[in-house]
Amino acid sequence: MASQLEFWFDLGSPAAYLAWKRLPKFLARSGANVVYKPMLLGGVFKAQGNASPVTIPAKGKWLVGDLARYARRDGVALGYPPGFPINTLALMRGAIGLQMRRPERFGAYVDAMFDAIFGRARDLRDEKVVAEVLLAAGFDAAEIMALAADPEVKQALIRNTEEAVSRGVFGAPTFFVGDEMFWGQDRMEFVAEALAA
Amino acid sequence: MASQLEFWFDLGSPAAYLAWKRLPKFLARSGANVVYKPMLLGGVFKAQGNASPVTIPAKGKWLVGDLARYARRDGVALGYPPGFPINTLALMRGAIGLQMRRPERFGAYVDAMFDAIFGRARDLRDEKVVAEVLLAAGFDAAEIMALAADPEVKQALIRNTEEAVSRGVFGAPTFFVGDEMFWGQDRMEFVAEALAA
Repeated sequence: MASQLEFWFDLGSPAAYLAWKRLPKFLARSGANVVYKPMLLGGVFKAQGNASPVTIPAKGKWLVGDLARYARRDGVALGYPPGFPINTLALMRGAIGLQMRRPERFGAYVDAMFDAIFGRARDLRDEKVVAEVLLAAGFDAAEIMALAADPEVKQALIRNTEEAVSRGVFGAPTFFVGDEMFWGQDRMEFVAEALAA
Repeated sequence: MASQLEFWFDLGSPAAYLAWKRLPKFLARSGANVVYKPMLLGGVFKAQGNASPVTIPAKGKWLVGDLARYARRDGVALGYPPGFPINTLALMRGAIGLQMRRPERFGAYVDAMFDAIFGRARDLRDEKVVAEVLLAAGFDAAEIMALAADPEVKQALIRNTEEAVSRGVFGAPTFFVGDEMFWGQDRMEFVAEALAA
């Protein structure tokens, strides 16, 4: 029986981006099945009394250098878009909408969005940039916008976010192996150990 | 020329305890010289707008399990004393006082205190327990209390804490290699790379 891994993420988290870039090799090595769990990190923060680390200036400054070390080690480009941390509500509705309605395109969407936000520091507050990024990845912007406006999709994102909170998630990325929770791209070696156990 | 490592810590930090337990082998491998920097973490938190992670219940709960994984990996006992997080003002004055006046006994004091607090979860809010722990490590409790009451010692702890804040420290343990800062017992592999560079 293959182990199962849950990957909880928000497109606005640079640590989740680094984890996402590592996941293909990680999953190939571990042989685990992954369940992707889009959540709204802002909602998680609010419910748990947590906040973005950048709200503590010294921590935010250190974290930029810290994530840069991980990005260098992984050979991954890492930048920050204008206005970071950004509001990801519409982007995450798009993600969970695709997961529900066109799951075969979910990975390509998350790839395109993470690469735009943290790989190329594009300004996704600008709808024209979003449309351009979607088009380049083979998506129809109008279709994604319609998905993001669908009440069932909105409700699904709320449900995931509530589930995250109820299971103790307080940041991103968060991994679950069974009931064991791991927070951070910097805990993936422990995740691998749990999957191998 | 041997590399120099600064180790900033507070006796109330379980992550600093784990790092302290690892330091002897770490220093032997890296060949680095270490400068120990006692600071008052509560003062650092206040100045930086930060707080103990246990103030966010979900994060505090996760952190207990996370540090337990590191402790298991390192083969180190880890418990939490009654009233954790504890007030370390007097204990840290004792540490910096010994560093100033009897530096050859500094390591034995920090060892004894960390082992009592996180190795054996002793209640150091009780002065009788503190005296017992000091006696067992070959210290005279009255001498340490006199050190902790010395105005120059108090001032030295304030100065270290202010220096920590001015250099961007926001948590413990914090390592510096030159100007590069590393936060956490979980960043020691990056510290090793910086020392080797």
